Order: sequence, then C-alpha cells, then structure tokens
Amino acid sequence: MKTGKQYIQDMMNMNFELYIDGGKVKGPEVINHPKVRPMINAIAETYDMQHEKDLQESLQCKSHLTGEIISRWTHVPQTVEDNIRKVDITRFANRRIGMCSFRCVQNSFPALLLTAQETDKAKGTHYYNNVVEYIKYFQKNDLVGCPALTDPKGDRKVPAHLQEDPDMYLRVVDKNKEGIVLRGAKMCQTGSVVTYEKIVLPCITHGPGAEAYAVACAVPGNAKGIKNISARYSQDDRRVENPEWDMGNIKYGFHETVVIFDDVFVPWERVFMCGEVEFTGMLVNLIGGTHRPTTGGCKTGWTDVLIGAVQTYAEYNGTSTVSHIRDKITDMIMYNEMMYSCGIASCVKSTWHDGVGMIPDMLLGNNTKYITSKAVYELVRLAEDIVGGIITTLPSDKEFRNPEISHYLDRFYKGARGATAENRARIVRLIENLTYGAGALCHSAAHGGGSGQACKLSMYEFARGEPLESRKRDAQRLCGIIK
Amino acid sequence: MKTGKQYIQDMMNMNFELYIDGGKVKGPEVINHPKVRPMINAIAETYDMQHEKDLQESLQCKSHLTGEIISRWTHVPQTVEDNIRKVDITRFANRRIGMCSFRCVQNSFPALLLTAQETDKAKGTHYYNNVVEYIKYFQKNDLVGCPALTDPKGDRKVPAHLQEDPDMYLRVVDKNKEGIVLRGAKMCQTGSVVTYEKIVLPCITHGPGAEAYAVACAVPGNAKGIKNISARYSQDDRRVENPEWDMGNIKYGFHETVVIFDDVFVPWERVFMCGEVEFTGMLVNLIGGTHRPTTGGCKTGWTDVLIGAVQTYAEYNGTSTVSHIRDKITDMIMYNEMMYSCGIASCVKSTWHDGVGMIPDMLLGNNTKYITSKAVYELVRLAEDIVGGIITTLPSDKEFRNPEISHYLDRFYKGARGATAENRARIVRLIENLTYGAGALCHSAAHGGGSGQACKLSMYEFARGEPLESRKRDAQRLCGIIK
Amino acid sequence: MKTGKQYIQDMMNMNFELYIDGGKVKGPEVINHPKVRPMINAIAETYDMQHEKDLQESLQCKSHLTGEIISRWTHVPQTVEDNIRKVDITRFANRRIGMCSFRCVQNSFPALLLTAQETDKAKGTHYYNNVVEYIKYFQKNDLVGCPALTDPKGDRKVPAHLQEDPDMYLRVVDKNKEGIVLRGAKMCQTGSVVTYEKIVLPCITHGPGAEAYAVACAVPGNAKGIKNISARYSQDDRRVENPEWDMGNIKYGFHETVVIFDDVFVPWERVFMCGEVEFTGMLVNLIGGTHRPTTGGCKTGWTDVLIGAVQTYAEYNGTSTVSHIRDKITDMIMYNEMMYSCGIASCVKSTWHDGVGMIPDMLLGNNTKYITSKAVYELVRLAEDIVGGIITTLPSDKEFRNPEISHYLDRFYKGARGATAENRARIVRLIENLTYGAGALCHSAAHGGGSGQACKLSMYEFARGEPLESRKRDAQRLCGIIK
Amino acid sequence: MKTGKQYIQDMMNMNFELYIDGGKVKGPEVINHPKVRPMINAIAETYDMQHEKDLQESLQCKSHLTGEIISRWTHVPQTVEDNIRKVDITRFANRRIGMCSFRCVQNSFPALLLTAQETDKAKGTHYYNNVVEYIKYFQKNDLVGCPALTDPKGDRKVPAHLQEDPDMYLRVVDKNKEGIVLRGAKMCQTGSVVTYEKIVLPCITHGPGAEAYAVACAVPGNAKGIKNISARYSQDDRRVENPEWDMGNIKYGFHETVVIFDDVFVPWERVFMCGEVEFTGMLVNLIGGTHRPTTGGCKTGWTDVLIGAVQTYAEYNGTSTVSHIRDKITDMIMYNEMMYSCGIASCVKSTWHDGVGMIPDMLLGNNTKYITSKAVYELVRLAEDIVGGIITTLPSDKEFRNPEISHYLDRFYKGARGATAENRARIVRLIENLTYGAGALCHSAAHGGGSGQACKLSMYEFARGEPLESRKRDAQRLCGIIK
Repeated sequence: MKTGKQYIQDMMNMNFELYIDGGKVKGPEVINHPKVRPMINAIAETYDMQHEKDLQESLQCKSHLTGEIISRWTHVPQTVEDNIRKVDITRFANRRIGMCSFRCVQNSFPALLLTAQETDKAKGTHYYNNVVEYIKYFQKNDLVGCPALTDPKGDRKVPAHLQEDPDMYLRVVDKNKEGIVLRGAKMCQTGSVVTYEKIVLPCITHGPGAEAYAVACAVPGNAKGIKNISARYSQDDRRVENPEWDMGNIKYGFHETVVIFDDVFVPWERVFMCGEVEFTGMLVNLIGGTHRPTTGGCKTGWTDVLIGAVQTYAEYNGTSTVSHIRDKITDMIMYNEMMYSCGIASCVKSTWHDGVGMIPDMLLGNNTKYITSKAVYELVRLAEDIVGGIITTLPSDKEFRNPEISHYLDRFYKGARGATAENRARIVRLIENLTYGAGALCHSAAHGGGSGQACKLSMYEFARGEPLESRKRDAQRLCGIIK
Repeated sequence: MKTGKQYIQDMMNMNFELYIDGGKVKGPEVINHPKVRPMINAIAETYDMQHEKDLQESLQCKSHLTGEIISRWTHVPQTVEDNIRKVDITRFANRRIGMCSFRCVQNSFPALLLTAQETDKAKGTHYYNNVVEYIKYFQKNDLVGCPALTDPKGDRKVPAHLQEDPDMYLRVVDKNKEGIVLRGAKMCQTGSVVTYEKIVLPCITHGPGAEAYAVACAVPGNAKGIKNISARYSQDDRRVENPEWDMGNIKYGFHETVVIFDDVFVPWERVFMCGEVEFTGMLVNLIGGTHRPTTGGCKTGWTDVLIGAVQTYAEYNGTSTVSHIRDKITDMIMYNEMMYSCGIASCVKSTWHDGVGMIPDMLLGNNTKYITSKAVYELVRLAEDIVGGIITTLPSDKEFRNPEISHYLDRFYKGARGATAENRARIVRLIENLTYGAGALCHSAAHGGGSGQACKLSMYEFARGEPLESRKRDAQRLCGIIK
Repeated sequence: MKTGKQYIQDMMNMNFELYIDGGKVKGPEVINHPKVRPMINAIAETYDMQHEKDLQESLQCKSHLTGEIISRWTHVPQTVEDNIRKVDITRFANRRIGMCSFRCVQNSFPALLLTAQETDKAKGTHYYNNVVEYIKYFQKNDLVGCPALTDPKGDRKVPAHLQEDPDMYLRVVDKNKEGIVLRGAKMCQTGSVVTYEKIVLPCITHGPGAEAYAVACAVPGNAKGIKNISARYSQDDRRVENPEWDMGNIKYGFHETVVIFDDVFVPWERVFMCGEVEFTGMLVNLIGGTHRPTTGGCKTGWTDVLIGAVQTYAEYNGTSTVSHIRDKITDMIMYNEMMYSCGIASCVKSTWHDGVGMIPDMLLGNNTKYITSKAVYELVRLAEDIVGGIITTLPSDKEFRNPEISHYLDRFYKGARGATAENRARIVRLIENLTYGAGALCHSAAHGGGSGQACKLSMYEFARGEPLESRKRDAQRLCGIIK
Repeated sequence: MKTGKQYIQDMMNMNFELYIDGGKVKGPEVINHPKVRPMINAIAETYDMQHEKDLQESLQCKSHLTGEIISRWTHVPQTVEDNIRKVDITRFANRRIGMCSFRCVQNSFPALLLTAQETDKAKGTHYYNNVVEYIKYFQKNDLVGCPALTDPKGDRKVPAHLQEDPDMYLRVVDKNKEGIVLRGAKMCQTGSVVTYEKIVLPCITHGPGAEAYAVACAVPGNAKGIKNISARYSQDDRRVENPEWDMGNIKYGFHETVVIFDDVFVPWERVFMCGEVEFTGMLVNLIGGTHRPTTGGCKTGWTDVLIGAVQTYAEYNGTSTVSHIRDKITDMIMYNEMMYSCGIASCVKSTWHDGVGMIPDMLLGNNTKYITSKAVYELVRLAEDIVGGIITTLPSDKEFRNPEISHYLDRFYKGARGATAENRARIVRLIENLTYGAGALCHSAAHGGGSGQACKLSMYEFARGEPLESRKRDAQRLCGIIK
C-alpha cells in the first residue's frame, strides 16, 4: 500500500496538464497550484491513514480476488460487515479531513461486475473478466480513481443519439481490433488531475439507436486526448494568496474540472460495456444503489466537523448552555445520525450476488442519498443560525496581521472566558468553509452521486411491483376487501 | 409456545375487572367487550403467528438462559442479529395487524438485568437473580406483559416526594419479610386487561428523599388491589354497534386504561429495585435506549399498511400514475424507510454487556424515536392529502345497507375501472382508522415509549462528553486551533 | 337580521329529511338529532353574534345593491377593507365557536357575478341579473347557504361526459321554459340539513361535449328530489349519549352529508350558468381565488383556540415556563399568524371589477390555502407533543361520575397548583376535539375549499406568463444576458 | 432629491478611509475599490430610480414634517398605505439590483421618535426634538445611512457593564456641554464606507449600572475617530480581477466592515438617548418591530430574481415543463409570497401613535423575520436542486475566453433550443451569487435585522399577556371550564 508521499510523487510523474486562470499549467505546476494542492493533501492523507496502527484493522483488508492485503478503499465488499465498514471509514476519513475523502470510485466495482456478468450471459461478451482483471490491477497498485459519469446533456429531453450535436453524451467514435476511441466530455469531474484513473460510465439509461453512447471503461488520468479545464468555485481565489487561516480548512480542499475526451483510445481489456444499451439501465441503477449508501457516512463525517465547530463557537461565546442552542445542536446531531443510520441500514439489508459480492439494498441506498440531499440544508441552516452575522462580516487574516489595527480586532473579536479573537475567527472560517465556502457540503450533498430527484425516481422504481403490491394486500386484508 | 386460543382462554381465566361505560364488567364480559375484544384479537394473532411455518425461523429462538426454544417476543437479545430481528418482527407483526402488536415489554429486560447487576455490585442487593428467574418464568410460560411506567405526576416541576399528594408517583407504602406494598396509579396503560403481567418501572429519575418511589417489580395483571379503569378514545363508541367495516381495521384494535394500585402486594422475588434512587436514572435511560430502536420497526409496520391503503385508494380513483400522487407516495416511502433505517442502525451499533446481552446504541435508539415522533405526522399529512375529503364525509356502513338509499351510495362512491363503492369505502375507513381513528398512529408515535422531547434530552446527554468533545477536536485541528 | 332563535325555527319549518343511523328522520327530529344539533347551535350563534353591540360594527354593513343594513356574512366585498373584514370576522367567529362558522358560501358571489357578466357579454345570456337578484334575496332574508361543489367524479382521469355512468358529475337532464332539472349527487356537503340554500357550482373545468355538466344555480335546501344521507365521522357516536364534556367542544360541532339530486327542478331565475363550458374554468378559478383568502382567518380562529387550550394545559401541568414548551407555543403562534398573514395580504392586493367589487389576489389567495393545508399538521403535531399520552388514554366523563372510582380519577388526574382533574380532562377533550375528534381541523384545512394540490396548480397557472417572465427578465438583466 | 451621480460624488468627497487587503486605502481609492464599488453602484441605482417617471409615485412622497416632496426612502410612515409601500418599494428595488437595496435605516425613525417621546415624558429630557430635527435634515439632504447596532458582546451571558473589557459594548466615555464621546466598536456594518450617516443604536436591553451603554445618536460616516476595517466574504476576491460575468450579478454587490469608534465626539443635538437604561428595551423592541416587516419585501425581491433565474435555467435545459421542476418552482413561489404576505399583514395591522406615525404590528412584524430566516434556506435548496452540479463545477469566464479551449466550453455547456453556453453560464453564476456567493441571501435573511431566535423571543413577549389570556378564555369557555 502506498504512502501519501508516494502518491504525490506519482501525481507529479503523471505530468497532468490543466487549463486554469486563462492559461495552461503542467506537471508539478499542476500539483502545486494553490487551487489544486489542497485536494492532493486530502488524498495523500487518506493514503497515510492506511498505515496508522490504530486504523489498520479498518483500512486494510484481504482482497477476495487475490487474497492479498489491500487498502479497503479498493475492496469489493463481500459481507454485510464490509459494506458497513465502507460507510464507517468514509465517515471517519471525512471527519479527519473535514470534507470529501475522494475514495469512493470503487463503489462502482460491484455494479460493473454484476452488469458485466449479466451482459456476458445474455450476449456472449467477455466483459466480466476485464472488470475482474482491472480491479486486481487497481488493488495491486493501490490506486485512486475519478468516476467519469456526468455528460453535457444539451437538451435534457432529447435522447443522446437525437441531439443536434452528437457529442452531448460521451460516445465511441471508432472501434478496431485494439480498442475503442472516445469523444465528448464529462462534466463535474472531482479530482481529474489528482487521480490515477478515470472510470468512464454512462450517466443515464440509453435506448436502441444510442449504442455508441453505451460505454463503460477505464482510462488513465493522463491518457492522450484528455484535456482538463479547471472549474471556478466559491472562494478558490482566496487560496491563491495563501492565507494563514482564511480558508477555514487550512490544509484540505476540492478541485473540480471539466474533462474533454478528444478522441481518447481505450484498449479492449479496459472496456466493460460497449454498445449494449439494454444494460445501461441496470448499470446506472446499480451504480446509484451501490454508491449512495456511502453518502450516509460521507456527509456525516463532514457534519461531524460542522457540529464540533458550532459547539466550539458556542462555547467561545459563552452560550453553549443556553436552551435554544442546545436544542439546535441536538437537532444537528439528529439530522446527522439520521443520514448515517440510513446508510447503515442499506448495508445491513445487502443481498449476495455470486461473483460479485454483497450489494446494498437499492431502495434504502437511494433513500439515504435522497434524505441527505435535504438534511444538509437543515444542518447548514442550524449552524448559521447559531453562528450569526460574523460568518459574512469577519475581516481577513491579513487585517488581523496589520499591526495598525490588529489590536482592535484582537480585542473586539474575543469571546468568553479566554476565547481569543483568532481562535473565534478560525472556527468561523471553518464553518464558512463547510457551509458555503470552498468545502460547501450542500452542493456535494445535493448533486454529488446523483440528485435527490434521481434517487426519488429510483426509489419509486424499486418500490413498485412487489413491495407496493404486498403492502396493498396487507391493507386490503385488514379492511376486509380480500381475505 | 401458546396459541391464540390458549391465550384467550387464559385471559378469560384471569377474571379481570374493568370499570367502563359508567359501570363495571368482569371476566368473559371484559374479554368480549367490543372495546376490548379487538386488542385480544391482535395479541392472539401474535401468538398464532409463532406457529406459522414460514415465520418460525423469525419468531422462535433459543433462550440463552434455559437453552429451550422460546418465542422471540420473550427473548433477551444476545447478538446484533437478535436486535435487528426484533425490529423486523415488530414491523412484520404490525403490518399483519395494522397497528401495534403489543409485544415489546420484553424490551425492558436488558435494562432490568444491567441495572440489577450494577445495583447488586454497588449495594450488595440481590436483584439480578430475581430478574433472571423472572425472565425464565416469562419465557417458559410464553407470557405477554404490559409495561407500567407513566405516573400521574401532578405538578411536573415538583419531585415525587415533595408533591402535595404523596401518591402522584407510584410508591412503596409498606415492606415486610415477604414483600412490598404498592400504592398509586399508572396512567396510559395499553392492554392492562389483556395481558398476564405488569412490569412496574419508574418513569423518571428520582433523587434522595424519594426512595419510596424507586421501585421496579413484576405484578400479575389480576393481582389483588389492581383496579382497571377504561379510557375513552377516538371512535371506541363506534365499536359498540359492531359495524361491518366502519372500524376500518375490522378485527384488531387498542384498549387503554388507567390502573389504580390500591395497596398491591409484591413478593420479594419479583422485586427488581426498591429504594435505590441512584440507579433510577440508569434504569430509565436504559429502558428508553433498549426500547426505542423498536419504534423503527413498529411505526413502519403501521405505515406500510397506510402506504398500501393509500396506493390502493389512488388506484381505485384512477390517479395512481399522476405525477404528484407518485411523488407523495414516494415521500411516504422515504419517511417510512427513514424510521426503519434509524431503528436498524441503532441495533447494528449495539454493545455487549456480560450477563445481559447486546444493548442497542443509546444515541441512535433515542434518535429513532425522536425522528419517528415527527415523521408520522408527515406520513399522515401525505395520506390525507391523497385521500381527500371523503375521509371525513363518508356515510356509515349502516347507510350502505339501507335498501332505500344503498343504490345511490353504491353508485356515487364507485371509482375507476370496477372499483366498487364498498371497497373504496373500506379502504377509506382503514385510512381513517390509521390516521385519526381508533388506531391512530400519531399518538402512539408521539408519546408511546417516551415523547420526542424526552428522546431529544437523552440524545444531548449521550452526545455531551466524548462524542461532542472529539468532534470539537476534529474541527479545531482542521482550522489550526490545535495540532 | 335574524336571531339564532329565528334561524332554528326556520330550520324546523324547512322540514328536512335525513337518512342516518340506518333509518330516516324528519323535521324537528333532524334538528334535534344529537349528531346535527351541534351544528345548529354553531350557526345560531353566528346569527346571535350579529346583534351583539360590540360586534355590530364588524358584522353589519350596508348592501351595495340595496343600500340596506345587512349581515356582513351576506355582503359582496366592495373595498379592500371589506375583504380584510371578511377574514377578520371569520377568525373571530371561529374563535367563538371553536371551529368552522359555516358562513362562507357568500365567497362565491363575486365569482358568480363576474362569470355571469363575462358570459352574458360573450354569449348574450342573462345570468348576471339572476345573480344580482338572488344576492338581494339572500341578503334581505339573511340566509345561510351550503356550497354544493364536489361531484362523485368516478374515474378521476375521465371527463364528465365520457364516464361510464353519466351521473358521476351533477348534470342537467332536462330543460324547459320554466327551468332545468338536475340529476346526480354532491359529496362532502357540510350543513345540508341546517341551511336554507344550496349554491350549486361545478367543481372542475368542463370542456366541449360536457355542456350538461356546466351548471351553476341556487336550490332551496328542502327542494323536492333532494335526499340527504348523513356522514359518519370521528366521534359522532360519542354525541349520542349526550356526554357532559367528553365532546371537548361541549356545544358546537359539524354535520356532513352526501346530497342526492334526484331530478331536482330549478327555475330559470335561479340559474347562473347552464351549458357554457368555456366559462367553467373561469368560475372554478374565481371561486377558489375568492374563497381561499378566508382560510387565513378560518383556520386561525380554530387554532387560536388550540393555542389557548394548549397553554391552559401546560399551566395546569406546571410546565408553561419550561423552555421547550415556550418554544413550541411560539412556533404554534408563528404558524397561526403565518396563515392569517397570507389571507390578509391576498385581500390587500385585491383588484376592482365593475359590477362585482373587490376580488382578492388570486395567486396570494391560493397560496393562503396551500400553506394552510400543511401548516395545520404542524400545529396539531406541536399541540399533541405538548399534551402527551393523556389525549388518547383519558377515561370518559361517565367514569368520572362513577362514585366507585371518581375519587381515584379526581386524584390522579389533578395537576399543579389547584388544577382539578375535571378541568384538566375538559381541556384535553377540547384538544382531542380539535386535533382528531369531531372538530378535526386537519381535514377541513387539507381539503375544505379545495386541496393543497389544487391550489398549487392554480398558483402555477397564475404565475406563468408575465409574473414569471418579468422575473426572468430581471434575472437575465442582472447577469448581462439582456440589457 | 439626489441622483446616483451626485451620491457618488458625495461619497468621493467624504474621503473615507478603509483598512483592506492588509493595508489602507483612502478617498476615491475606497469608492473605486473593486470590493466596494458594487455597493456604490447599488445605492446609486436607488437614487436614480427616484427620478424615473414610472416610479415617482412610489418613490416620492410628502414629508409629514416639512410638507416637502422627499424620497420615500427617508419618509416616516403616517398611514397603513405608507407602511405597505415601504415593503413594496423594497421588493421592487431588490428585484432591480438583485440584492439588498440598503435603504432601510429609516425604519429606525419611528422607533427613535416614540422612544424619545416616552423618555422625555418620563424623564424631562429633550430627545424628541433632536430626533425630529435630525429626520428633517436627513430628508432635506436625501441621505442614506448605516444602522450601527451590533456590539462585539464578548461573553454573551455577561451584561455590558460587567464584562472584563468595558468596551465590549459601545459606550459613552465622556460627556460635556457640547456633547458625548463614544468608544467601542460596531460589528457587521453593511455599507459604512458608502453612506453619509451612522445611526448608532443599542443592540440589547441594558439594565441599571449599564447607563454608559444606553446610547442612541447619529454620527457622520466620516467622523473623526471612526475606523473602517473591511470584512472578507464569499467571493469578494473574485471581484479583484474584474471578471466579465463570473460575479453573477455583474454590477451590484455588498460591502461589510467592522467599525471602530475610537473616541468619537457627538454633539448633543444628535443624541437621542444617553443613559436612560429603562428605555433601551423599548427602543430595541421597536427597532425590531418597525424594521422586520420590511424583510417581507426585502428577501422577496431577491428571491424574485432567484426564481426568474432558475426558471430561465430550466428553460435553457429544456426541463421547465417537467412535473417535478414545475412543482419546485411553484414551491419557490409559495415560500416567496409567504414571506411577502407576512410583511404586508404586519403593515395592515399597524397602530397609530401621535407624533410618530403608523407602527406595524409587532407580533406580525417579528413573525415575518422569523419565517424569513428559515424560508430562504428552502428557497436556496430548491434552487440548487433544480440547477444541479454545474453550480460548483463551472469554469471561469477566463477559461471561456481562452481561444485554445473556448470552443469546447461553448459546445459542451450549451443547452436546449439555442441556449448558448455563455448564457447558461451567466445565469448559473447569478444563481451561485444569490445562493452562496457574494450576494448570499441566507446570511442576510438569517441574521440581518436580528436573528430568527431574537424574533421568536420577541414574539413570545408580545403574545404573553392578553393575546394568550384571551385565547385561554376562549378555550376554557368552549369546554365548559368557565362560562
């Protein structure tokens, strides 16, 4: 298993290119760019965690494919306990870094395995073996990947193959004996210049006629034809001046891009679906269902930090024992454990699939994400309610360092019983970071891993049929319509 | 294990007395009273279920105390799986009978065992053995009990022993070599005339001076000095005329009483606490924490039926595919699985206690009940939103049977595609029953097993200290206040 | 203006027939039936109120049609102030009687006037004069009416004229020189046997082909061919035994029916629409828009009483100063004034229509009802949260009067500082009545005057077009898309 | 009345100093600073609006003090209509500039007038005349002011005069014949370097011993001893590079500061309270009550723009007719009109005070702000739900202008039916601005003008006593406790 240092060196070696700030940077310039570096730090931390003694039991496990000890981040869950662990380590890691830990691309492995298995069975293809071999490679090299799902989509009501511009969904423009060629783009790419691999997946169900768009495969992050264009997001500019504590989360952060696929070649052994439109629905649903339970650990890790920060702030103000503050802190805990509980329950109710492993309950998994997509706004509202106007009116740490005025700020921003102005300011900046700054959890919770609405639609799909029919029978029997 | 028939015969034999309708009834008159019988039916059903082939794996298990096969309803959970099973069988049984299945008094056993163990350790008492022997007796005879918690309480701000009237909390008025004598009352008693046993428990923490009120013990339902006074609740009068389907749930229902303890004698071997005020807090907290996870199965069973009923009704109206109806049904499913997930998660995070078993996570358990106490109102609102004005304006089944007008009702109440007026009416009555009728889930969810506010206060108690401190450390480290 | 006594005598004289309890009653038997009488009492109270000195300024006004002093309950609002007054007197009256005051049929007058005016203009008909003359008659005789809107509807997805059974919407089956003949039924009829008049109105928009269903007219409550079938609703059975205080609201209550129109003749001068399908949409929308602001006063009157009851109960328990109780009472006030404010605002933004008067803002009016349909559930939840399990476990007043046990109940149900058991019980019964008993406000708020969903759809209709377009322009200008 | 140009020139002339970016700027450098200029633009726009023909009726009115035509922004409301107008023009102006229009300091005038009147009456002081003369001066010179309320507060549980550091609340450190001297700081100062005047007000009720802190007065924005320290807030850094459309709202924005009062002299004629602690509660409550109704117009103007932006975006995506999108847009409208309605209703229920004018209903006014402080989070959630991940992953306009990649972005960000990538990006940036960017409405709604909790506490204060007592009487009468 890699260390953080090895990971950073690897990233240097991958020699990424990134369009940013109106120009282009390359290699170490990318890795050390103030808008990228915080994400490098975060992922490096997840590599280092694997080696901490206390965490080895949680973060290391035996590969069911190779029997070797691997990082749990790369494991395909084989037991209910494996699935629960995944939720728990995600919560743990996210508490550690105060945001997303970027290690959930492996959630797509069971979905890929099961879909490939079914596809092979139905169509005589040989994708399953490709997936297995790729997972072994991924585990052996202790990689971190970036899921490449979201297509540009153009007119949302028009199918991929009927769009005016044929590239509004990523597609296969060429196939030959060696492999396939991809053209198009993937949007909302978290970490494309800080990860080894891209797992390319369809983001919606495609129908007949859209065969070129039914594609799943793995692509090295620095493959020829890949172009990374940096996103601009809340407070990324603040990073450039390298503030002491104005980022709130002083070390870790996100980096997002749009990734252009300008005729990227992928060899067949890395292709997991190519043209089988009738299996896109299955794959898309499975990705959602296997990934979304993790949200129950993911957002909770973040909001554990938010709760800790708000409690700290209330104590700094001398108000932590005021009844309405306690009440609100408890409601924050309620929302937090509610999200977590939903994730855990979907793991408990996993079902076994030969050749794949334990797949979480699809209805409960989607429910986790649907609930999360709303609950975080309540958490943010409660946090900001407690923190007050300071969240948007606090001077910069540059002002705190200006000797002409620092004595004013040190004085007027101090709190109760020895709470210094700087500590109050630091904790406010962290809350700012989490609620609407560079680590804003709302957007991650609202749309990362699929929107609440997508989850809701999935839930209805999984509920209709027997789950609803059996409830109807219970109701009808109780009131005497049926025996 | 008993059958329903045996249970009913036993109840007859117990020869209960009940003050009701301004008078008093006795023995079989109690059991067959139209306001009591539906609850007899419900409990009998839970006894019969134990013998159904498909359910034996779920509903039977091995006693860890005697090694004999017992009803799971009387089991003390020894594994995480045991705790999960308890939630699941409660959901199952409540779906079966469309309401509370009245088999959760055993949730107090782990609380009694652990408290007795600690009390014995600290005080040299011998309660633990009493509890163990009592549980064996309970299991061997396959009993069902009624938890006797809620005291009259008088002025809620005044401690038990300082109340003007000393009997506002149940108390020990005499002790001798053979046993103790109880005086006072227990309110909100669900099923006092349809169960074998009362488990008497304190409902709040008592302090020094209130030793007489620190009492836990087991009392036969028909002990000398017990007086049962029937409650009147929504639509209980409707039962009296024995309607065909106007009750909605045509077979099962509640019965509630106030129970007066008019100097009831309890022998020492059935006493589990007597005077140890310093352990009342522990006992009260443990009862809450071990019971409340079950709510995640309990209310969900009920609302499974509600969802099935509402879906049936929407289909009868021809509106089940309308987008806002689907949307609301999905939201009902969301709330339902949210409650369930919280219950399950608190079981998963159980902790082991030697001599007791697996006790669910106290924070997550309280959270389950707190969330449930709010979520059911959303479920009821959504149900009533879909069902419409018919819920409060439907004629009685007597009118449907009046030949002078039945042809009008049959015609004007029919629905889409062959949905008959009677079937529509039956399902509406069931929804009425569940939402605000004789089986109203809101009140059960709001206050049964402790109010949402009680749970919230418990949550804060379980969160303060290390859980909050560790979150504060995470936050402070991330923003650089501490290393 | 009539007194309550005169009104009751009139009702006796109308000699209504009512199918109830499996049989039929007639004349004074109807008026004195324990399930009907509480509603008679309520309406009589609204008549008596008009003569109270302090209320004359509010409840009397000058008819803009005749110049005579009339009851404001029959007035057609001519000013913003008139509209506000309507909301305010409804709130006042509902506080007085603790429920619906049944005097809002006049909300349909502006809708009928405007639609008749437009219809006459477009089609050369003469409905406007009929409406004017009818309103004069209504005002002169100080009548109270019952709106007859809701049709049986059968398959909700099938238009009226394509239903298998042609009578699933009320229709005109014959026309001649003297008038028209109505056949069908109207459901959810509040007060059909306690009011002088029925205002028959379409409940949905009808299209071409459904001309027979496009009918609006006025029908005497006791017209030949009218058949009233009583509804059964929560706790109506409890009334039969004439309890002292078990009804909660000891004097006032609802009565609901289904009304069959078995070929009812209506003379032309009482017909306001007959066949003009193209104006049904306008009429339906206007009825909603003119009526729904009143909800802002209506439900608030009810919940004023609920708040007063809950505050009383908290004081009886000695908990009214506990922080979470205060917090919840304040939230109840918040929801209450929110509903009221929405009603008031829709009146303030009324628009003038010549020959009609001031019509409230349609978007704000629908918003009032949409918000109300959700807010009452929050109010009920908060009330039940504060009140606790007693709401469903309190014995009947018959038990309180049984000398064998009354001393127990008087003792164990007493509260803090002299709060007697009976007073605690009375206030609990009132809260039961309001939340899920015979005066349940949820159902009235959810579906009375149109469902929340109907309001929501109306809101979108009123918002699309210029209201949304102008907001789009503002947005596009601010970000530079347009100048 | 001034024009925007005159206002800007005046600001230049005031020669403000501002500590920002670690240094200090002065005079025109302040006014043209990229972090300040957007707020200058916004206020200038409000001055220019007054001269637009269509708006003169709304924005100009007659001073009740001088009889001269003045800006309504400086008017003291004398009628219900005046109060409603204030809400409406605030909504209008905020729609125009897409955020706060910064013209509500005049909301404190009625509070100052009434408090001064009562103080003079009780204590023989002469403040009332000072307030009147100051308002005349303010109106005559068509000024804009900045309310200076929020004190540093230190330990929130310790009264001002018992704080370790005596300057944690602004205080009077000296008094002489000419005037008083102020020392301390005011936090959360919106617009201190872009306004003529500061209205200094206490932010909490002070008690005996805290006389030095009971001070209200007017101070020129550039008074000697005033030090402005700039706040850093979300995306203010983005302004520095002067982006084409990355700010979202391309012209208007906020600027916040901390203001140090380093022994600032105020002449007696500008002092409105000095030492009368017993009137601080009245003043603080009145400021809340007279200001908070405006929130009903303020936030609604903002969210009108948000709704327009979201609707635009949905149309760009081709999804505006999808049922769940319509549903969510309608819910956004519901929340918006709910906030507005609450503001309007509090104006309608104003009460007259001789020598002051019409003061809005205090309970309804506080309710407006309490509701607003929660509703905006729902609005933001719904907006982000509709908009999706693009809100946090969109590249900068610098990338859109980089010819090497602009063709990719133009292609992959385009929408349905001719929606260009740039227009989609512009509208997304505007939504970003409103929801969590430089114009974030949540923080303004949560704490601007007092927190939700402060409003809630005020509501309880205004409700206790007769409002609650009369409701208790109604309830007790209805259930027979009293006659």
